[in-house]
Amino acid sequence: MSGLDYETLNENVKKVAYAVRGELYLRASELQKEGKKIIFTNVGNPHALGQKPLTFPRQVVALCQAPFLLDDPNVGLVFPADAIARAKHYLSLTSGGLGAYSDSRGLPGVRKEVADFIERRDGYPSDPELIFLTDGASKGVMQILNSIIRNENDGILVPVPQYPLYSAAISLFGGSLVPYYLEETANWGLDINNLREAVTQARYKGITVRAMVIINPGNPTGQCLSAANLKELLQFCFREKLVLLADEVYQQNIYQDERPFISARKILFDMGPPMSKGVQLVSFHTVSKGYWGECGQRGGYFEMTNIPPQTVDEIYKVASISLSPNVPGQIFLGLMVNPPKPGDISYLKFATESKAVLESLRRRAHIMTDGFNSCKNVVCNFTEGAMYSFPQILLPRKAIEAAKKAGKVPDVFYCLKLLEATGISTVPGSGFGQKEGVFHLRTTILPAEEDMPAIMASFKKFNDAFMEQYEDHGGYSRM
Amino acid sequence: MSGLDYETLNENVKKVAYAVRGELYLRASELQKEGKKIIFTNVGNPHALGQKPLTFPRQVVALCQAPFLLDDPNVGLVFPADAIARAKHYLSLTSGGLGAYSDSRGLPGVRKEVADFIERRDGYPSDPELIFLTDGASKGVMQILNSIIRNENDGILVPVPQYPLYSAAISLFGGSLVPYYLEETANWGLDINNLREAVTQARYKGITVRAMVIINPGNPTGQCLSAANLKELLQFCFREKLVLLADEVYQQNIYQDERPFISARKILFDMGPPMSKGVQLVSFHTVSKGYWGECGQRGGYFEMTNIPPQTVDEIYKVASISLSPNVPGQIFLGLMVNPPKPGDISYLKFATESKAVLESLRRRAHIMTDGFNSCKNVVCNFTEGAMYSFPQILLPRKAIEAAKKAGKVPDVFYCLKLLEATGISTVPGSGFGQKEGVFHLRTTILPAEEDMPAIMASFKKFNDAFMEQYEDHGGYSRM
Repeated sequence: MSGLDYETLNENVKKVAYAVRGELYLRASELQKEGKKIIFTNVGNPHALGQKPLTFPRQVVALCQAPFLLDDPNVGLVFPADAIARAKHYLSLTSGGLGAYSDSRGLPGVRKEVADFIERRDGYPSDPELIFLTDGASKGVMQILNSIIRNENDGILVPVPQYPLYSAAISLFGGSLVPYYLEETANWGLDINNLREAVTQARYKGITVRAMVIINPGNPTGQCLSAANLKELLQFCFREKLVLLADEVYQQNIYQDERPFISARKILFDMGPPMSKGVQLVSFHTVSKGYWGECGQRGGYFEMTNIPPQTVDEIYKVASISLSPNVPGQIFLGLMVNPPKPGDISYLKFATESKAVLESLRRRAHIMTDGFNSCKNVVCNFTEGAMYSFPQILLPRKAIEAAKKAGKVPDVFYCLKLLEATGISTVPGSGFGQKEGVFHLRTTILPAEEDMPAIMASFKKFNDAFMEQYEDHGGYSRM
Repeated sequence: MSGLDYETLNENVKKVAYAVRGELYLRASELQKEGKKIIFTNVGNPHALGQKPLTFPRQVVALCQAPFLLDDPNVGLVFPADAIARAKHYLSLTSGGLGAYSDSRGLPGVRKEVADFIERRDGYPSDPELIFLTDGASKGVMQILNSIIRNENDGILVPVPQYPLYSAAISLFGGSLVPYYLEETANWGLDINNLREAVTQARYKGITVRAMVIINPGNPTGQCLSAANLKELLQFCFREKLVLLADEVYQQNIYQDERPFISARKILFDMGPPMSKGVQLVSFHTVSKGYWGECGQRGGYFEMTNIPPQTVDEIYKVASISLSPNVPGQIFLGLMVNPPKPGDISYLKFATESKAVLESLRRRAHIMTDGFNSCKNVVCNFTEGAMYSFPQILLPRKAIEAAKKAGKVPDVFYCLKLLEATGISTVPGSGFGQKEGVFHLRTTILPAEEDMPAIMASFKKFNDAFMEQYEDHGGYSRM
């Protein structure tokens, strides 16, 4: 046996499950290689589905990559003056341009811009020394979980359904996922009683619950947490001494006006002491979502609140092992938190482009939810925020039996059939967690708006035929 | 106690030591904030010390960031035609440009270019499916070590002195570092007897040695391994069933003609079966070193040889958790392995720029080694390759006592004094490991060539005064 033989690998590596790029994705990739047209709705990857990048930030980063252009007499023919000025600004924050490692926490000047953004957003000052830039938010989440988890008796409260980054990272670091169920019938709301019960059950099994994850707006569930809900859960963290990990990467993706995004940090500070001094909070954000969708650039940050300095030093030390997050991604993050302002040459274009993306996403959220709800045996909450629909599929007993015969989990069976019939690549609900005996799938709301009616029609055609094929009046999964 | 209190953190996180950005770096950063001019030679970060990026790759990546320029009638005024063509080529390899996540292993088209490069280099075909792109080589090393290490009884053979990425990552994943000493008196050569002894000693302690790291050319030691040496150590890995991790990130940084870089993979295949089928090998490369020095872009790859497909699947799965390496870094990697060719418009400029960097590095390697050897109580092997000098400092007994009194490891004491006196920020040898009772420091050879004589003069002035101050005829560290 040699060190990289499967049998001898780190068991935690083997335990990891990551459905977003799991069986469905692999099958979709195969079909694509065979020449079939695939609509990848498995990952929130807007540019892959045709969303165009915002022009101004791309101009700035292009100029930062090509600093020799700044002295070129023709540069003004292809770049606006404010992009040139911003490129000079960001280059002045580096020590050696985009090709030099930054500090392992990211460029101090960009961290300052992030702190200013947070202060404007929440109305409370933020300290750049407590902001670390990362290669996308996922890397930050992994770093924090790795710091917290010591062994399999350390539990992390994770909403179910959840984004599988959390289950995967907790497996990798050898901890225990402690699920708390979101209420599908209350539009995926968070019921504090479910939290209490989850902690009680975990303790009964000998697990020390050490942290709690919220995803707000929700992935895959799309809900926006209310101020009252956030307050309740912060009180819960205070009482139970839990670190709150607030995954707020979809904070710009809001598709209704009743429940705007409010950060966990703002609510915490609104509550004042002892709460505001007593809850350890780490908040995450990214350039991959919002109306930016710059996934491939890998830019993100986390901000720490009430984390002891000695711990911050440890997190800094571990970040240093891989030297620095990629610097272009840091510039994108700077631009995201400090976009063009009214009066700037590029402001109007920037505002028009961003508004168009957000408004189209809002329309697509409606088209998709309505589409799902028009299908036989499919019910779907409205996507209040984020980028996903998570319809429940009420599978007939016969379909469940057919899945078992095929050796598949029922929702995997359904999603594979959907993929083969329509080319739509989704992720089965079992990859996110769901209550026993109910089934879902996740799609992004990202296909181009003009393609959306055809996609939903194709989905409906497949689904309704599937339901007819397996209908047996023997009951459904949910009932 | 809450989850991120220092006392309750993951012990492996606390155990990590990372000297390259440790006490010396933190003190240097403080001094810089206070207005002192610091020469950062602690990290191999060429652009931070004035090395200019190569023009062609920056033009290509700038155009990929600003694809709207490709339709601009004025683009030809600021970009050459071959850069425009290459930008179109790389954009065609993405699905959605630089803003879309790629496959978690990296863009298939770039992995194909890497495979072609490896085949040209070694004379043996390479399979793109066994090449994974990463955010710099460090991330790849961490991923592989994480897959191998199960617990503290799993040992990894690491050269000492070593690059602290290895010790840090092994601590983080909870394994055991098994040191094998390089021979300073044989120009840091690898003596196979030291390897055998290291394994025997580890076994005696109950450790299963599972993998072996080589850094070729050496960091911090600068040696280039000979074909005969590589053959010996591959035979050793075969017999002992060790995975060989070949850190070959400095393969373009060679400063003598006697010992060109040869990859471990080429030697392995030259040996034929059963060797060539029997040794599990993972080789690492990067855009951060060579004459590129594009550290901030975070581009790298690893190639797997003789790794079972089931293991490759596991590594793929874990890579998927953070979705994809940054895409601009992948394009840099493509450009590195597929640079302009004779006849291309940009060839001459590219060749001139790269040659100038390499020739200057070669001259600097000589200036630095000669400079160190001209100092009192300093002896230094010539930097055959990589980017570092690793002089031994023969500390007088009195200096060692003064260090103890100050509560410092003797080489840390020396390097701190050097920093305060001259602004030169180095890394003490103890951060890399060294034999008991001998002391070193590491500097990069990266300060600008024109600054080099002044830096070495400033070093000599400090060192010789230090030696005089502590001289007591009571003997030296090494003797």
